[in-house]
Amino acid sequence: MPRYPGFSPPISAMPTSVYSALAHRLSTMSGETYPLHVGDTWMEPPEGCRMEDFPVSAYPGIHRYAPVQGLNPLLDAIAERTTARTGFPTQRSEVLVAAGATGGLGAVIGGLLAPGDEVVILAPYWPLIAGMVISFHGRPVPVSILGLDTVEGLISSVEAAITPKTAALYVNTPNNPTGRVLPRAWIEAMAELARKHDLWLISDEVYEDYVYVGDHTYARPFAPERTFSAYSFSKAFGMAGNRCGYVVGPAKGMEQLRKVSTHTFYSTPTASQWAAIRALEGPGDRWVAMARGQYLETGKRASEILGVPCPEGSTFLFFDVVKSLDDSGMGGLLEKCVEQGILVAPGNSFGPFPTHIRLCFTCSPPEVVLRGVEKLARILAH
Amino acid sequence: MPRYPGFSPPISAMPTSVYSALAHRLSTMSGETYPLHVGDTWMEPPEGCRMEDFPVSAYPGIHRYAPVQGLNPLLDAIAERTTARTGFPTQRSEVLVAAGATGGLGAVIGGLLAPGDEVVILAPYWPLIAGMVISFHGRPVPVSILGLDTVEGLISSVEAAITPKTAALYVNTPNNPTGRVLPRAWIEAMAELARKHDLWLISDEVYEDYVYVGDHTYARPFAPERTFSAYSFSKAFGMAGNRCGYVVGPAKGMEQLRKVSTHTFYSTPTASQWAAIRALEGPGDRWVAMARGQYLETGKRASEILGVPCPEGSTFLFFDVVKSLDDSGMGGLLEKCVEQGILVAPGNSFGPFPTHIRLCFTCSPPEVVLRGVEKLARILAH
Repeated sequence: MPRYPGFSPPISAMPTSVYSALAHRLSTMSGETYPLHVGDTWMEPPEGCRMEDFPVSAYPGIHRYAPVQGLNPLLDAIAERTTARTGFPTQRSEVLVAAGATGGLGAVIGGLLAPGDEVVILAPYWPLIAGMVISFHGRPVPVSILGLDTVEGLISSVEAAITPKTAALYVNTPNNPTGRVLPRAWIEAMAELARKHDLWLISDEVYEDYVYVGDHTYARPFAPERTFSAYSFSKAFGMAGNRCGYVVGPAKGMEQLRKVSTHTFYSTPTASQWAAIRALEGPGDRWVAMARGQYLETGKRASEILGVPCPEGSTFLFFDVVKSLDDSGMGGLLEKCVEQGILVAPGNSFGPFPTHIRLCFTCSPPEVVLRGVEKLARILAH
Repeated sequence: MPRYPGFSPPISAMPTSVYSALAHRLSTMSGETYPLHVGDTWMEPPEGCRMEDFPVSAYPGIHRYAPVQGLNPLLDAIAERTTARTGFPTQRSEVLVAAGATGGLGAVIGGLLAPGDEVVILAPYWPLIAGMVISFHGRPVPVSILGLDTVEGLISSVEAAITPKTAALYVNTPNNPTGRVLPRAWIEAMAELARKHDLWLISDEVYEDYVYVGDHTYARPFAPERTFSAYSFSKAFGMAGNRCGYVVGPAKGMEQLRKVSTHTFYSTPTASQWAAIRALEGPGDRWVAMARGQYLETGKRASEILGVPCPEGSTFLFFDVVKSLDDSGMGGLLEKCVEQGILVAPGNSFGPFPTHIRLCFTCSPPEVVLRGVEKLARILAH
């Protein structure tokens, strides 16, 4: 049967973004609006690490292709930082610079999956991971850990989802959307499950710098031979629009990942890589220290206003609004929010959570976010 | 069978770049070298369109995410330019801004193919298109048109390659690697073949601005309901490292493409989109007029030195070196070139052309390229 006028069946079956129509309405509204559905920061990146800081006179060729693996000074800085942070010695050959952590995770999924392969995904999950698995003709298998509080519970839930078609396990901590920071024992258990069942482990650690309670656990040292860890300068240093992040993993795997990245975005923007190099020389960590305090303060105040727990990490609150839903359901609630200039993300973007919503508390200046949260709290109280 | 320690079988089977070891050797050599294997320009982009021209003071939020489809002013500028250039009225909804034409074509391939689908590719072809089809679990079917000079020959060659699994036809003019500018009748024939056999048509037109003999033919007006055309600011305005290009096609298709682009690179770098907006306001076309004259002059002199035909378009020469090969074959020739500081691309990267080589005559300043070409000519004469 010819393909035209049809598209790829799995892509056609994928729902289009639920936000787009609502976001369009928000963009046409006058007065202050609250785009709390976006995962971004309102702040500019550190001084010295902005596009204006990279003149052609000092950086000749900065608009030319970079090598597909990344610029050597960036690969070296990442290898050094990864070694220092994880305690696991990391070489240049174990790093792939990518078009954001998204580009990097796409390369991991594309490099690992054959059609029909399954990825077990701890849920609530980062929305793009499920669509990424589908884009490369795999099947996402969400396993909810919401409210789960024992490592035994984690192990039995994950083992129940593993089939002969499972290729990889995916874990994201600090978590988008829940803000949860998974305990060390849980990460260790995930690595052991991967080893026991001959699986790859994909560890999404893009919020590593934004932990408010406890410590972030790096997955790679527990199973370096099978773990791909993703990081993001977007989240770390307020550079989401630069599209520059990276993946660290076993060298022979990176060779395969590079084939996919080369064929989906070719190379990572050259100027964005220089911005990352400069940020890693010091300004980035100072910016994080400043941002972290502000994020925590805003997250804490937002959670108090809404009467939900303070996040342990990340830049999100995720909570059940079932008591605030009337017959018009989640669609009606989103509608009511948009009428007040507020956009939040519905829970089913993150797995089987039809009565939850997610909001980002760093997308606008704190006072704006908190005004939006006050309005949201009044809507939810009705 | 568990996936670990294996990778995606089609990705594993894809050869790694043949250049990387040779390119590494070149990078360690002292003295002048000639990286003629790269498809890039040695020139900086137009003034006013460089990263340094986008300060945060004038462009607040330039480091934040852009919408996944692209910035509105860029979408509008592209729609207007496409309408003017192709004569076919084009709307914002028919445009996707992407991480280079590579990101755009990846979204097309991902949006169209199911596993096992075939894409008929006119060869010699741009090397990434074959790997892109494989990355999304399809099968590239090359059809050589090298030396073919009748439209009847084109039609019968393409029809012989179409099977019930064919999803799309791919054509690239002006051509990388051959420099050939396909006649209008050929593009029309490709569109008719697509319509006759219920196929999509993918038209890679990234060298539209670099035509030296004859005229470029835009494919979309012949079959707008089924054609996706790819363009590149990289090639047009010397911004390859910015990773910003675009695809134009039917609106209901763009919706599907956006799902793939969102899941492989998310959005196109924001500052790169502003650079494209500024370039489209005038500086870009002035830069092209200057670059085109220089490229033509260099291409002409390079072809004279090598005794091969002058290119009709693009920035490449592609020619048979069978008479210069000894028992050591193409590998031996590449080796001899590297010893002299020259890197060229072997013909099998572009289809079944094991005794051809490709060189780019715009990757270094004209005098450097021509010194490299002189050296290459001496190697080939032995």
